[in-house]
Amino acid sequence: MPATTGNNYIERIDQLKTRIWIDGAPVTGKISEHPAFQGVMKSQATLYDLQHNKSLKEVMTYQSPSTGDHVGLSFLQPKTKEDLTKRRAMIQQWALSNNGMMGRSPDYMNTMLTAFAASAEFLRGKENCFPENIVNFYECAREKDLSMTHTFIDPQVNRAKFYFEDTDEPVAAKVIKKNKEGIVVKGARLLATQGGITDEIVVFSAGGIQDKAKGFAFSIPSNSNGLTFVCRDSFVEGDSSFNYPLSSRFEEMDTIVIFDNVLVPWERVFYYDNIEVSNSFMAVSSVLPLTLHQAVSRQIIKTEFVLGIVQSIIDTINITEYHHVQEKASEIIVALETMKALVIKSEVEANIDEWGFMRPDQTTLQIAINFFPRIYPRFTEIIQLLGASGLMAIPTENTFKSIIRKDLDQYLQAKSRNAEDRVKIFRLAWDLTMSSFGTRETLYERFFFGDPLKLSSHLYFSYDKTPYVNRVKNFLRKE
Amino acid sequence: MPATTGNNYIERIDQLKTRIWIDGAPVTGKISEHPAFQGVMKSQATLYDLQHNKSLKEVMTYQSPSTGDHVGLSFLQPKTKEDLTKRRAMIQQWALSNNGMMGRSPDYMNTMLTAFAASAEFLRGKENCFPENIVNFYECAREKDLSMTHTFIDPQVNRAKFYFEDTDEPVAAKVIKKNKEGIVVKGARLLATQGGITDEIVVFSAGGIQDKAKGFAFSIPSNSNGLTFVCRDSFVEGDSSFNYPLSSRFEEMDTIVIFDNVLVPWERVFYYDNIEVSNSFMAVSSVLPLTLHQAVSRQIIKTEFVLGIVQSIIDTINITEYHHVQEKASEIIVALETMKALVIKSEVEANIDEWGFMRPDQTTLQIAINFFPRIYPRFTEIIQLLGASGLMAIPTENTFKSIIRKDLDQYLQAKSRNAEDRVKIFRLAWDLTMSSFGTRETLYERFFFGDPLKLSSHLYFSYDKTPYVNRVKNFLRKE
Amino acid sequence: MPATTGNNYIERIDQLKTRIWIDGAPVTGKISEHPAFQGVMKSQATLYDLQHNKSLKEVMTYQSPSTGDHVGLSFLQPKTKEDLTKRRAMIQQWALSNNGMMGRSPDYMNTMLTAFAASAEFLRGKENCFPENIVNFYECAREKDLSMTHTFIDPQVNRAKFYFEDTDEPVAAKVIKKNKEGIVVKGARLLATQGGITDEIVVFSAGGIQDKAKGFAFSIPSNSNGLTFVCRDSFVEGDSSFNYPLSSRFEEMDTIVIFDNVLVPWERVFYYDNIEVSNSFMAVSSVLPLTLHQAVSRQIIKTEFVLGIVQSIIDTINITEYHHVQEKASEIIVALETMKALVIKSEVEANIDEWGFMRPDQTTLQIAINFFPRIYPRFTEIIQLLGASGLMAIPTENTFKSIIRKDLDQYLQAKSRNAEDRVKIFRLAWDLTMSSFGTRETLYERFFFGDPLKLSSHLYFSYDKTPYVNRVKNFLRKE
Amino acid sequence: MPATTGNNYIERIDQLKTRIWIDGAPVTGKISEHPAFQGVMKSQATLYDLQHNKSLKEVMTYQSPSTGDHVGLSFLQPKTKEDLTKRRAMIQQWALSNNGMMGRSPDYMNTMLTAFAASAEFLRGKENCFPENIVNFYECAREKDLSMTHTFIDPQVNRAKFYFEDTDEPVAAKVIKKNKEGIVVKGARLLATQGGITDEIVVFSAGGIQDKAKGFAFSIPSNSNGLTFVCRDSFVEGDSSFNYPLSSRFEEMDTIVIFDNVLVPWERVFYYDNIEVSNSFMAVSSVLPLTLHQAVSRQIIKTEFVLGIVQSIIDTINITEYHHVQEKASEIIVALETMKALVIKSEVEANIDEWGFMRPDQTTLQIAINFFPRIYPRFTEIIQLLGASGLMAIPTENTFKSIIRKDLDQYLQAKSRNAEDRVKIFRLAWDLTMSSFGTRETLYERFFFGDPLKLSSHLYFSYDKTPYVNRVKNFLRKE
Repeated sequence: MPATTGNNYIERIDQLKTRIWIDGAPVTGKISEHPAFQGVMKSQATLYDLQHNKSLKEVMTYQSPSTGDHVGLSFLQPKTKEDLTKRRAMIQQWALSNNGMMGRSPDYMNTMLTAFAASAEFLRGKENCFPENIVNFYECAREKDLSMTHTFIDPQVNRAKFYFEDTDEPVAAKVIKKNKEGIVVKGARLLATQGGITDEIVVFSAGGIQDKAKGFAFSIPSNSNGLTFVCRDSFVEGDSSFNYPLSSRFEEMDTIVIFDNVLVPWERVFYYDNIEVSNSFMAVSSVLPLTLHQAVSRQIIKTEFVLGIVQSIIDTINITEYHHVQEKASEIIVALETMKALVIKSEVEANIDEWGFMRPDQTTLQIAINFFPRIYPRFTEIIQLLGASGLMAIPTENTFKSIIRKDLDQYLQAKSRNAEDRVKIFRLAWDLTMSSFGTRETLYERFFFGDPLKLSSHLYFSYDKTPYVNRVKNFLRKE
Repeated sequence: MPATTGNNYIERIDQLKTRIWIDGAPVTGKISEHPAFQGVMKSQATLYDLQHNKSLKEVMTYQSPSTGDHVGLSFLQPKTKEDLTKRRAMIQQWALSNNGMMGRSPDYMNTMLTAFAASAEFLRGKENCFPENIVNFYECAREKDLSMTHTFIDPQVNRAKFYFEDTDEPVAAKVIKKNKEGIVVKGARLLATQGGITDEIVVFSAGGIQDKAKGFAFSIPSNSNGLTFVCRDSFVEGDSSFNYPLSSRFEEMDTIVIFDNVLVPWERVFYYDNIEVSNSFMAVSSVLPLTLHQAVSRQIIKTEFVLGIVQSIIDTINITEYHHVQEKASEIIVALETMKALVIKSEVEANIDEWGFMRPDQTTLQIAINFFPRIYPRFTEIIQLLGASGLMAIPTENTFKSIIRKDLDQYLQAKSRNAEDRVKIFRLAWDLTMSSFGTRETLYERFFFGDPLKLSSHLYFSYDKTPYVNRVKNFLRKE
Repeated sequence: MPATTGNNYIERIDQLKTRIWIDGAPVTGKISEHPAFQGVMKSQATLYDLQHNKSLKEVMTYQSPSTGDHVGLSFLQPKTKEDLTKRRAMIQQWALSNNGMMGRSPDYMNTMLTAFAASAEFLRGKENCFPENIVNFYECAREKDLSMTHTFIDPQVNRAKFYFEDTDEPVAAKVIKKNKEGIVVKGARLLATQGGITDEIVVFSAGGIQDKAKGFAFSIPSNSNGLTFVCRDSFVEGDSSFNYPLSSRFEEMDTIVIFDNVLVPWERVFYYDNIEVSNSFMAVSSVLPLTLHQAVSRQIIKTEFVLGIVQSIIDTINITEYHHVQEKASEIIVALETMKALVIKSEVEANIDEWGFMRPDQTTLQIAINFFPRIYPRFTEIIQLLGASGLMAIPTENTFKSIIRKDLDQYLQAKSRNAEDRVKIFRLAWDLTMSSFGTRETLYERFFFGDPLKLSSHLYFSYDKTPYVNRVKNFLRKE
Repeated sequence: MPATTGNNYIERIDQLKTRIWIDGAPVTGKISEHPAFQGVMKSQATLYDLQHNKSLKEVMTYQSPSTGDHVGLSFLQPKTKEDLTKRRAMIQQWALSNNGMMGRSPDYMNTMLTAFAASAEFLRGKENCFPENIVNFYECAREKDLSMTHTFIDPQVNRAKFYFEDTDEPVAAKVIKKNKEGIVVKGARLLATQGGITDEIVVFSAGGIQDKAKGFAFSIPSNSNGLTFVCRDSFVEGDSSFNYPLSSRFEEMDTIVIFDNVLVPWERVFYYDNIEVSNSFMAVSSVLPLTLHQAVSRQIIKTEFVLGIVQSIIDTINITEYHHVQEKASEIIVALETMKALVIKSEVEANIDEWGFMRPDQTTLQIAINFFPRIYPRFTEIIQLLGASGLMAIPTENTFKSIIRKDLDQYLQAKSRNAEDRVKIFRLAWDLTMSSFGTRETLYERFFFGDPLKLSSHLYFSYDKTPYVNRVKNFLRKE
């Protein structure tokens, strides 16, 4: 079956009738028409449709090795450096559609599943492991172009170093029994982004498991029995793209996922009751290099958008002559080109892994993911420092449609833009950095690959410093 | 007439029927019942009522020199260091009522007018200046406890260094004619905070005027003919104090002020057509030291609130043991005690000015106002870094009232708080730093006393560096 | 006996013939004539002489309560807030003599001993404690105006969290036996600044002791048997005050102190074999508030000197018009006034301790000591950023005395200074920030009161955050 | 003639008897034996000898197109991307010899001259321009392996924006007359690094010339009549490589260059009296991309060395377990890999210029040169923060050779190193960051390609932001 279309995606999700609670009530009716979800689902549908855009066919799809159908290129298991370059072109093409604002465009999860499947042989012969289930599910997802979300974080009850949950009723989701049909899971997981608007939810652990009952991985349909998605506040404040150019389109929603005795059928269990595999599979698989490659490629497009917004502000109110303005814009340019350099290096230094797949250089991508969460918040700060009071002089679309428009035209005109265009630019800048949607984006980038402190520890320990220590030793031995 | 009450305030504003446009339509009906204004007007009313709280009478009021009535202490013209201490106690008492979240609680404008009046003698004998009008208006405001806003910034058309407006139709407000009744003003001004929910609007210039027609200062009632307040988007997202503990109460609104041939009667004109006075009165008056003293006193209370929130998060999820957590909380403690030290120093080093009034040391307060706009955004960053995903796991009040509350109780429990209390703390942290209200607060503090770059230039030039340069000279002369 | 003079100090130290090793050889001959020590000893002597400057008598001395002699005011045990102000005046007067460059001017150690003695009653009745020995030694030091250094850090063998020395031969100094005459100490201590050029060395622990044999405090003469001071590299590069305006005068030397079976006579033992007292005396005594008060007062003078140097550079090459220059200078002004505010607050909020002595507010001074180590290195960075290549265009005094002086006069002239004065200013800036002396100053300020991370942990835990947490609780309870 | 050897280099420089003044006296005798120069000349000689190391012949040399001799690869005019890779290998091989500490290893100037020659055609047909002189001099330098320095900055008299020198006696060097033999230059230039220890000095302008008499470029021998090099203080503090592992070897000296009616023969004049060429040649030529490529390649090796030193400190005192330590080391790793990524991207995106030579992507290298000057000072800060008091516990080589060595062995031992090795590591760290040599290195990296503010302005203006501004425009046009 070829890559799906926007319509198919929307119909499929509407039919699932997944249990989603928002603001104290379950979603009834078509979810694609619910104010909190319609914008993002439409944007997601646009992405799927791009796969059928003739001029992009080569960029967005490839021939399925099993069926010969044109399937989504985000499912391509790379075997050459060219495959990596192709993957990047696909990722960035999709990202251009939303200027990198959708952290969970389908390529993200597709890449993750693709990488898990490419490394499934690691599970071969290990206790309670079913590598063929991963591979089968990957092929199924590829051919049907299934949409997915995932969840891998326990609830934030107590973040002390030596906390171990010890309760009768589980808080963090775990396997509470097994039977003929499969494993039964009870408890909760944080935060499934796009939870409820995907076909499937993939559930696994990020490592550090000490309780066998938490040592599992599987995927199930979003509408599985006993599964509930509880939403936070929606950050969609209205459907006017004038007022809310970003949040009306790209608000992806985060959900708490509750497993109330959810049965996971055996054919969907990737592994269970295996602490060691749980704690090592992610690290030995190509999941990290490939998802990092996806994320960094997307973040580049987002950074370009930020630069575009910053320069638009500078032009609009004519502040290009100020040194500090040039310096602030330069910070973004430096960050952008640095990210581009890192993704190039990761491809130039890519290597074939033990299962025959090409991995972009993981260390290089770790650099990017240590760097970007620190610089992205600075982008939002720069926008606030340059936009200043202009970010508050932002009357709504209705105001422009009213009889006082003539006053706005006169009093909100800017050097190089008329009042309406100026307000649109500033509303965009506001929606990126100051609306509830925008600040959630910032938080998302801050923590995208986890706690920044842990990321830097991990980088430190995984990086080979020996050659440089030896260089110092040799230098000190010289007379 | 003694200090006003909350009810009086609300009734008075409701009766004005000021012309306020919001989202494409004028406000009709009682403004105090409009969703965008009801919360903040209620909070403002609470402030006025505090003046009648018996236990606070001494803190909040003093005897009017003209009537003997107990009038608001924010109108006290300080003559001793004790007066400054009293003023600080009053400011901080009011700030406690909203934890410093209202940048424009009445003491701000009352202080400004009080200071203008205390320095009115500067205008004596100068061209087109009417010092008695300031004094009269001050006394009137003090006795009636009038609420006020102000505006002193021109529209942000073009921020190049050498831009001078040169249009037939004025953009920036200016005097376009004079007649028997007064001066007539046309054009716009940015951004009157609380515009439309005060009795009066004070209009003057911050300096740097080059066009005589912009060299004026006056005050007029908010409902003057030809005067319109155009609102930005309201950041009130709902009236649930569970969901929006801050924005439902303290959203002060910013407005563009449009003068369409507004007549300012002569008795309300403080000066006009006088560039020199326009550019110097602010600097020579006690407006800066006294309003800085007000602002810094309020910011201290706000910082205490931030520290309370940060420590509440730390306790809730039990992260006190982490060095980086201790370090981040310490940053806030250092900032808080620094602000306290600066306000104390400003009082210890206060001096009598040429008109007999006591001024807190202006340089010291300039330090504070150079410091706080740089550290406050860091507070919000710290909250995001500590709160992390907890800031997105924030179901609404209705969710807690629904049948899935039991799930929330189980899965959102925290180390030292139950689920509801935990979510309340995180929603508060979110509303402070990530809601549209919260980010506007951050922007407000960033620019409260103007462009940070200009503030540091101003500090540099006004600070006497000679003694230290001489010390270097003397040192270099030593053998 | 009244406060000592410079000559007395020098003679006394010369006569001690303390065992000091520098660059592989013991110091022989008069130490006051040794190139590594002559400059700093002369500067120290100048300080003592200031006590006899008639116009400063009131500032620098007070009447001894035991003898009525005019003794050094740094020995004054404060009982009133005025005493604190007096102490600050004395500290800053001395600091002016070296522009705050001597971290160990005599007031530092005098203050420490004074505070120990003021809190000696804490030791009363505790095991192996001799409060009267402290008091006696304090009185002796006060009357004879003894110079002192101290040492309280163990060698840096292994800084892991759970390292405990476990060797036959002690590395860190400890008591290895007791006999009739006293206790016998073996091992080493880091880093006694001015080690070898003081009459006495005070030895105690900063806390965190787990080995009883390390739980001691005492003072002994620098020339005690078995005591050796091992110097680092001298940072005196020459005695030309043109070339090395700071290092030729103020290089205080740091020494490793080796105890080779040193006998400490009983009358000089303050306590021994008492872990609990060792770990608590510093914290309960007034040592911290009083030495912090000394340090902060000195750092203010040093910051003024830095500002003087920065402004001298700005004037010299005429860069005052640049915004970034103004901003950088403002950073120093902000820091300076902040430090001043903190010391004032510490005095305004001072309190009488349980033994009747006045303590400046410790929390406030902790703020200063968390702040200064982070800002001082920025000062040096600012100087480098402003001085730029000028910091390398610094020919020596001899070059100015040679026949090519005429070329220097022509080619090194500056806007507002002739070539010689310009080079002098830049050499001073260089000596402050770039010479081995200058970088050691920076390191010294970075770590003056210990590891910055520990300082912020300590501040966090000692600061009472409860009122603010409660304020949040109360706020969240409101409807 | 093939690439030169170390001996040839030293003999040649000794024979020049260039006029060098240091500390008030001219250098007499062999300069290669002068304490201030012998270390660096020996290190330079080592570099030349590497060209004759058999195993490195392919890396370090190539066949001269004119003679077929093996000449230094730093003279290779790149025509392919492979040539760029070869150039990088050569640069980094040389840099390894001094761990990147020599900012002016010969490849720097060789690259500059090579690039000028590759762009010489730009001068063809322009007034007072002699492109063949550049090409001839380039070929001469290549065949003789001449060593060079350069100077392009005017004395720092007055750095105001609108300062123009207007004196009878020139301060900044300029052409004061022309005659049959050549042009005559009078005035001074700052700061020729390695001035006096090279065969030639290349003199040109960095742009921004407004006085025709300053619009020139040429090269002359260091011993030309009327030419004097005036040294700053030498930062060689001794020749012990134990004590001063870096400064005893790599102190490159900076000199003020004085032209006292120096005749530049016509065949050495590249151009003169041409403002336009003076202000544009640098920008249109391949000098920037090629010298940036050299600099960045070297800085990578230096960063590796810094990382080696940091990790050596961490190992020595066993602080690897601390999060903040891991984080600080990670900062260096991030910087290192970022620099590597940038140099790779510059090669991947290289392009042929209009004269047929391959240029690495200049924008990418500008990113590096905006980045490195900001991060290098942080490296030195990290070393100070981790090394702490260990950086002051550094007795000299003589101390280790004395009888108290046994005490040092006991008391300065570290977790994983004996006392001597530990002190060597800390002395190295000290020499890198705290000696006069080390701080000069820091200053050098801060300003290597000019004022950081100007670098970011230049980046801002030269970077094409249009595509991103258009992307914003298009996005805002969408419904």
